[in-house]
Amino acid sequence: MPLSHRIEAALDRALDRARAGAAPPRLSAALDYAIKPGGARIRPTILVSVARACGDDAPALTDAAAAALELIHCASLVHDDLPCFDDADMRRGKPAVHRAHSEPLAVLTGDSLIMLAFEELAAAGVRDAAEARSGQLVMALARRSGMPGGICAGQGWESEPQVDLHAYHMSKTAALFIAATEMGALSAGHDPEAWHDLGALIGEAFQVADDLRDAVLGESDLGKPAGQDDLHGRPNAVAQLGVIGARDRLSDTLAGAIASIPSCPGEAALAEMVRRQAEAIMPVLPARYSA
Amino acid sequence: MPLSHRIEAALDRALDRARAGAAPPRLSAALDYAIKPGGARIRPTILVSVARACGDDAPALTDAAAAALELIHCASLVHDDLPCFDDADMRRGKPAVHRAHSEPLAVLTGDSLIMLAFEELAAAGVRDAAEARSGQLVMALARRSGMPGGICAGQGWESEPQVDLHAYHMSKTAALFIAATEMGALSAGHDPEAWHDLGALIGEAFQVADDLRDAVLGESDLGKPAGQDDLHGRPNAVAQLGVIGARDRLSDTLAGAIASIPSCPGEAALAEMVRRQAEAIMPVLPARYSA
Repeated sequence: MPLSHRIEAALDRALDRARAGAAPPRLSAALDYAIKPGGARIRPTILVSVARACGDDAPALTDAAAAALELIHCASLVHDDLPCFDDADMRRGKPAVHRAHSEPLAVLTGDSLIMLAFEELAAAGVRDAAEARSGQLVMALARRSGMPGGICAGQGWESEPQVDLHAYHMSKTAALFIAATEMGALSAGHDPEAWHDLGALIGEAFQVADDLRDAVLGESDLGKPAGQDDLHGRPNAVAQLGVIGARDRLSDTLAGAIASIPSCPGEAALAEMVRRQAEAIMPVLPARYSA
Repeated sequence: MPLSHRIEAALDRALDRARAGAAPPRLSAALDYAIKPGGARIRPTILVSVARACGDDAPALTDAAAAALELIHCASLVHDDLPCFDDADMRRGKPAVHRAHSEPLAVLTGDSLIMLAFEELAAAGVRDAAEARSGQLVMALARRSGMPGGICAGQGWESEPQVDLHAYHMSKTAALFIAATEMGALSAGHDPEAWHDLGALIGEAFQVADDLRDAVLGESDLGKPAGQDDLHGRPNAVAQLGVIGARDRLSDTLAGAIASIPSCPGEAALAEMVRRQAEAIMPVLPARYSA
């Protein structure tokens, strides 16, 4: 099965669990709306790719882990879009959940997706007598999602007058990429620590790529100067390094990510996956930046 | 250790985990504010009491389960108090979290407490090589908290034009009491199914006691007729049965709860605990209702 079909099938199974029996129909519909159609499913793609590189000897657990990680990511998008945070009208090309389904249902959608993520992981462990791995997966996912170092903490830093920038970036952007590589390894019974740096470096690359896209779009399409988006005093690779410097940083970070891949049966295929992801996120720079 | 100290100590350990290292200080403070000082801690009290009745042979797991259940309950209070739901100014005698700490921090507090609950459960399982029980606990807690039958579903029913009243009450009020008895049994390695009815009946008793308190307070203190609180078309025991009928229903439900306790080593002590909880929730009726 192609990797993308595998991930969508795992998400469908999770959604079926949440909408079984006497579920309130509107909240059920909002859960579906928040999950499908998805974005690039980058985090679960990395997770399954790492699990395959490690042998993927418990594929049902890997599927549950991939679904759980994407559920948490989607939950964070729904809550981050709320009026009290980004007040976003649109997400993935359609109205944000709170615009399409009401603000109460958006809060409950996020909460329900978080519960569902952990239920999926535990259910897979119980079903396949893989409770030890499942418990490690729950811990890894909770740790990268909550406080003090997960995406909740990352969002929480935006309410602080003084920001610990390293903690902010590690928790806000890198945490779920680290979860992806750690959980991929854990699903296949491998040591997650060896896989930490790959996730952290991919997370850093995505941050720099975002900064570049903002800057390039800003200059060529919107006519605003680079770094203008940095309203919260967040560090920005383009503001620090310029466009060319940030592009070089992105290339170096991705090379470092590939170099960090631990020795494992599927090392070459995994390096290829990271290269493909890198090509997908590398922005096309306007002609004036060409050497 | 008295049961209440045991529960507070377990909650303190969980909070310490969430506030370790480089946590954003304001969100850390909001987590603490949402948890302490607590209310009656009824759900974890029931959980630990059931675990003791079942032998409590893995007390660290019981502690984690009690903390996790109370964390989910507190998370639900923080989110239910948000402006888009109840817009509550006060909770437990002090300003609600979103009033004291801002609405973004209230959303994040709820999310963080949910993550922390599952992390606590999984961590206790991994630490004590009790992953099988821990996995069952994660499943039970997630199922009674999320969709389709947990407290998220219960809150979700309030956004529906047509309400399945049985599903509404079971999910909104009874779910976390069922979680309390199921998780108490699971912590001690007992079959949770045998403990379902005790939780459901205690949950029903709390619902009737709430209706009675509303009605009695309404008539004697606020001068409003019984059933006036029923703005959402929710069924109300006093509206259906009158004050005396509802009081009798409450007594019968609590007697049924005690009768439902499965045969176990600590059956008598557990029955006594339920009787004490019953006395605590039985409202004092104005003199005119005396026989």
